[in-house]
Amino acid sequence: MTTLPQHHPLHSTTADSRLIRAYRGDRPEVTPVWFMRQAGRSLPEYRELRTGTDMLDSCLDPALSSEITLQPIRRHGVDAAIFFSDIMVPLLLAGVDVRIESGVGPVIGTPIQTPEAVERLVATDPAVLDEALEPVREGVRRTVAGLAEIGDGSTPLIGFAGAPFTLAAYLVAGRPSKDHLAARTLMRAHPVAWARLTDWCADVTGRFVRAQVDAGASAAQLFDSWAGSLPLDAYVQHVAPASSRALDHVRGLTASDGRPLPLVHFGVGAMELYGAMQLGVDAIGVDWRTPLDVAHARMGGDVTVQGNLDPALLGAPWETIAAAIDEVLRQGSAARAHVFNLGHGVPPETDPTVLTRIVEHVHAA
Amino acid sequence: MTTLPQHHPLHSTTADSRLIRAYRGDRPEVTPVWFMRQAGRSLPEYRELRTGTDMLDSCLDPALSSEITLQPIRRHGVDAAIFFSDIMVPLLLAGVDVRIESGVGPVIGTPIQTPEAVERLVATDPAVLDEALEPVREGVRRTVAGLAEIGDGSTPLIGFAGAPFTLAAYLVAGRPSKDHLAARTLMRAHPVAWARLTDWCADVTGRFVRAQVDAGASAAQLFDSWAGSLPLDAYVQHVAPASSRALDHVRGLTASDGRPLPLVHFGVGAMELYGAMQLGVDAIGVDWRTPLDVAHARMGGDVTVQGNLDPALLGAPWETIAAAIDEVLRQGSAARAHVFNLGHGVPPETDPTVLTRIVEHVHAA
Repeated sequence: MTTLPQHHPLHSTTADSRLIRAYRGDRPEVTPVWFMRQAGRSLPEYRELRTGTDMLDSCLDPALSSEITLQPIRRHGVDAAIFFSDIMVPLLLAGVDVRIESGVGPVIGTPIQTPEAVERLVATDPAVLDEALEPVREGVRRTVAGLAEIGDGSTPLIGFAGAPFTLAAYLVAGRPSKDHLAARTLMRAHPVAWARLTDWCADVTGRFVRAQVDAGASAAQLFDSWAGSLPLDAYVQHVAPASSRALDHVRGLTASDGRPLPLVHFGVGAMELYGAMQLGVDAIGVDWRTPLDVAHARMGGDVTVQGNLDPALLGAPWETIAAAIDEVLRQGSAARAHVFNLGHGVPPETDPTVLTRIVEHVHAA
Repeated sequence: MTTLPQHHPLHSTTADSRLIRAYRGDRPEVTPVWFMRQAGRSLPEYRELRTGTDMLDSCLDPALSSEITLQPIRRHGVDAAIFFSDIMVPLLLAGVDVRIESGVGPVIGTPIQTPEAVERLVATDPAVLDEALEPVREGVRRTVAGLAEIGDGSTPLIGFAGAPFTLAAYLVAGRPSKDHLAARTLMRAHPVAWARLTDWCADVTGRFVRAQVDAGASAAQLFDSWAGSLPLDAYVQHVAPASSRALDHVRGLTASDGRPLPLVHFGVGAMELYGAMQLGVDAIGVDWRTPLDVAHARMGGDVTVQGNLDPALLGAPWETIAAAIDEVLRQGSAARAHVFNLGHGVPPETDPTVLTRIVEHVHAA
């Protein structure tokens, strides 16, 4: 029944891609590779495009968000696109007073620091997002159309969203903080209000990633930037249920080939948490501090690993980088499959030619 | 030969204290307890005393530093004093342009970002500290004299210093940063310069804690605030040797009772590093994210554990706090001995009456 599009004789579907095969547990002949924050400040073509446009405005401009998402695919030959956006976008669209301050990060106009403030926030029905997310859907549609024109047309787009804990940590502290103590204190002092807050965040961020999948994303990744501030017992009791609820918004969806849409979960500093992060996902991203084989042993399940070259190595001599890549590939062989990545986002100061060379090295390994 | 001081009929020596006995591996009948940052902003009497005086100036005023150090002993009845100072003090005294900015933290006038900058820095002989540290010695002498007047006179003073990696991370980044990427990149890109930098930091911070011991401190703790940003291999290769070198400045010293001075090592976020942190110390402090029994199993040696109540719990209802204390005590029983503490410093917003209640609960357990 499937008819190949006429415009590209080599067209394959994203289901044939190394990335989707690896997420589903195959070991493709070549290890797939992409980089967290590959679309962003390390690329001169990105800096040029973003000049004069606010971060959150860029995310909601479909022409910009799609072009920025495609830039690293053309330049580096990575095996996946990750939709250019910001984890704060769904909060903004739900009516939260949030802006991204240069050199600071997300700043919330009125931090949510009491059970009463939580009640006022969650009075907003997350369904308000369904219409507001249209610029995100349109950005994804344009990206997917653009990807079909690159190479054999099989490069998949990963949709993404911030995890509820990370969103809640920003909402409570009002700005980035070192160890998210304000959020963790609200969690311990007012567990019922905390659950209402993170459930609301789960539905807001879940609708955000669902919109990306509806518009054509081939996989979905939940990012928990701040999970690493939590001990395991607090994570299991006060955070994992909301993360699972966020994933429920894209769980069990069928991809374009009729098979289940692959889901990925990543937490920065999740050293003690890997055993609790599976939550039914296909792949778990590993931070740079835990060797992939060690992290995989903690996961205890049949799951693909993603990661985890230390971004601090990107400034090292090439021989040092190459040896570290080979070690990451060796450690990644402990899992059923491995998607190569950094252990955290690409630093803005990174020389992009190093990233291209890493892709070539992983593909040639 | 020992003559008890005349002024206090109940006088005991610090070697008899619960803290020193626990550090040395005994299990006293009552678990000793103190709090990291117990001297500081959680106490109204501290805020009153500090009004109008800069942080680093306070550290170098013997009357202030000793009084601030004694305040939590009088108020909470904790089993140890920890000398009130700042890990930046020895850098300041070695001539580094450093100040503590309110709401920011340490700021370095000229960050050390190249091998050439490292060479210029390390041209300063750490021996310049020997004279400059006199206000620290005098603060310690006054503190020790004050402690002899409290209770049975046996409360020991813990001397402290920042670990070389933490000092180097500030020197390279110039200010607090989220994951110390600038320092970790210098480490990977220029390992020889990095080793020269951290060796210099080791000798500077080592002389700082040695001065405290010479003036009467009964134990010494090395704090590595940023170790948790490192994977184990980088820690072992590029950080642990300098930490060991810092500890060498106080290793093998005899305490007032003729036995070796107890040494303690603490690293924030050290989840993956416990197996490499022993470095010949008597006790290892554990961060709030790793249960004491889990951390102790990773240490793999005959060592006392210290910690590790989650500071986020300090705002919770008392029943929640009490249950968490009991669980920490249970987990601490896995080691040869346990010194109760928080898993990180006392947050400034803490209600100090909660800390007093925790001391009473631990002592009654």
